[in-house]
Amino acid sequence: MGSGNKQTNYLLGIDIGGTKLAVGVVTPEGRVVAQERIPTQVEEGPERVIARLQGLCHAAVTAAGITWDQIRACGVGCGGPLDPECGVVMNPPNLPGWVEVPLVQILADAFGRPVYLDNDANAAALAEHRFGAGRGVQNMVYLTISTGIGGGIILGGRLYSGETGNAGEIGHMSVVYNGRPCNCGGRGCLEAYASGPSIAARAREAVEAGEPSLLLDLAGSPDGITGETIKEALLRGDPLARRIWDETVEILGAGLASVINIFNPRRIVLGGGMTNYGDLLFEPVRRIARARAMRPLAEPVDIVPAQLGNDVGILGAAAVVLERLESRAAEVGSYV
Amino acid sequence: MGSGNKQTNYLLGIDIGGTKLAVGVVTPEGRVVAQERIPTQVEEGPERVIARLQGLCHAAVTAAGITWDQIRACGVGCGGPLDPECGVVMNPPNLPGWVEVPLVQILADAFGRPVYLDNDANAAALAEHRFGAGRGVQNMVYLTISTGIGGGIILGGRLYSGETGNAGEIGHMSVVYNGRPCNCGGRGCLEAYASGPSIAARAREAVEAGEPSLLLDLAGSPDGITGETIKEALLRGDPLARRIWDETVEILGAGLASVINIFNPRRIVLGGGMTNYGDLLFEPVRRIARARAMRPLAEPVDIVPAQLGNDVGILGAAAVVLERLESRAAEVGSYV
Repeated sequence: MGSGNKQTNYLLGIDIGGTKLAVGVVTPEGRVVAQERIPTQVEEGPERVIARLQGLCHAAVTAAGITWDQIRACGVGCGGPLDPECGVVMNPPNLPGWVEVPLVQILADAFGRPVYLDNDANAAALAEHRFGAGRGVQNMVYLTISTGIGGGIILGGRLYSGETGNAGEIGHMSVVYNGRPCNCGGRGCLEAYASGPSIAARAREAVEAGEPSLLLDLAGSPDGITGETIKEALLRGDPLARRIWDETVEILGAGLASVINIFNPRRIVLGGGMTNYGDLLFEPVRRIARARAMRPLAEPVDIVPAQLGNDVGILGAAAVVLERLESRAAEVGSYV
Repeated sequence: MGSGNKQTNYLLGIDIGGTKLAVGVVTPEGRVVAQERIPTQVEEGPERVIARLQGLCHAAVTAAGITWDQIRACGVGCGGPLDPECGVVMNPPNLPGWVEVPLVQILADAFGRPVYLDNDANAAALAEHRFGAGRGVQNMVYLTISTGIGGGIILGGRLYSGETGNAGEIGHMSVVYNGRPCNCGGRGCLEAYASGPSIAARAREAVEAGEPSLLLDLAGSPDGITGETIKEALLRGDPLARRIWDETVEILGAGLASVINIFNPRRIVLGGGMTNYGDLLFEPVRRIARARAMRPLAEPVDIVPAQLGNDVGILGAAAVVLERLESRAAEVGSYV
């Protein structure tokens, strides 16, 4: 960088998670110039967390060797529900105590730059579409599968966000009628079967019911069972881990078949911690989704891993800015 | 009308169904000036059916008191799968023998007018959005529930048709994991529970299994059970009809909750023969869909009956033309 750099189109990407805060200075091409991370310490409440977040933003700008004048705008990715138009965080499950926080106003006042907010799954979808596994694709569905399942929908090359900015809750598509209760209050949602904690819970219940399994040796106790222990047991040929995993990929595959039938997408991108299972996940899920989807819709789609790894939060927040500026430009016709 | 009418922006709406052909001359405002209907007689094969269809089109133009010069373009609504871009009907289940029929080419050659093709569910969605229950709404999902379940998706005020023109197969969203086999080859699809024949089949199976019911008296035999006999039994308080119906509206409600969570739409429009059940259908389905959907997404949506009745086929085909012309205009920027 150095003081000679006068580029004024940097983006500040701000990723607010339940466990960590990450901030990065990003170029419009998706290069992360500098980044800073600290634990969220969500128990401190929104005021103190936001104060520390502001410090982190200043630190990232300094680390990038630039001044705030060189930041075109800031993007924020945060757990939903939120109101992207008003810039208000409503009451996300992963940020207890954050009730109707006018985050965009607070940060815009603090930094004197425009600020744009969207939920973290939409942000990640935008980043994968612009910089990662969805480049060049017009119609793409993104799913992040980790402690929950979030989704983001890119249609005709643009984020589809719905009537009030909350579209894409594909994790809360009901896949097992009157099935397991879900965190959302519903039943039988995809998230209630294919998220990390749901898989661990189903394995734990089976072990507690007395089904013999390596899992108990690996985890020490039923409560110790995690995605990692299941993966290990699976690789060692444990029948219980195999049964739970087979059921998981069947249900996820059936869910993706529905996504294919509904959206007729070109590509489905899967991100989040669960994709660390690699081919154990992708091979069966691809096969099952294609077999269950309608033939003319199964043909044009591919199901691929996300590419941006740990940078997806920061890049996603930056992509929110680019998407908002471009949509606005398209609306007023400056594109044509 | 009369020979003094020189208006040149009429649309010819052509609706090709498995049981009837309907053609209408339509104004851009959605007024049907003249219409003609005949049975399809699908057993005659595509060549003879298309020859009779052409005669029907000429009859409609004559009945409207206009000449072909006054038709701006023709729209065709037809069962899918089809290729809307190439104008080819692939192999619709309701038109046996129609394999890769280049319908747009045939009709454009015959009439010397531009011809646009889309599937009947998309066409109906466009008509309801433009002329019926979806007027003024940006984000709307349309479902037609009759012998099958078709869907059409309007997002940002435009038809969303997916990567290869086949999006919107909401009837083939899997709602009961590994449930009843569906016509599409999948299992547990919405269509396998909430379409007319599926409801009748479930009632028939229960009667055949020996469950006592008024249905047998009303229908004469298990094979005689139809949507009408189930409705009659339901109104007379028959417990079996009630159980089948409650299950149907529960599953349909759960399916619509998924639609709400995925699309965050402003409105869901339900059409097709099943909506003749009226409040027996709409009251519980509204309640169940809202209760099962995520709160911030359940609030902005309403679930309403389609408004266009028997004209939806002709108006839908006409709306396909208007949609195609306007999308093209928007693409080349003549709108801005």
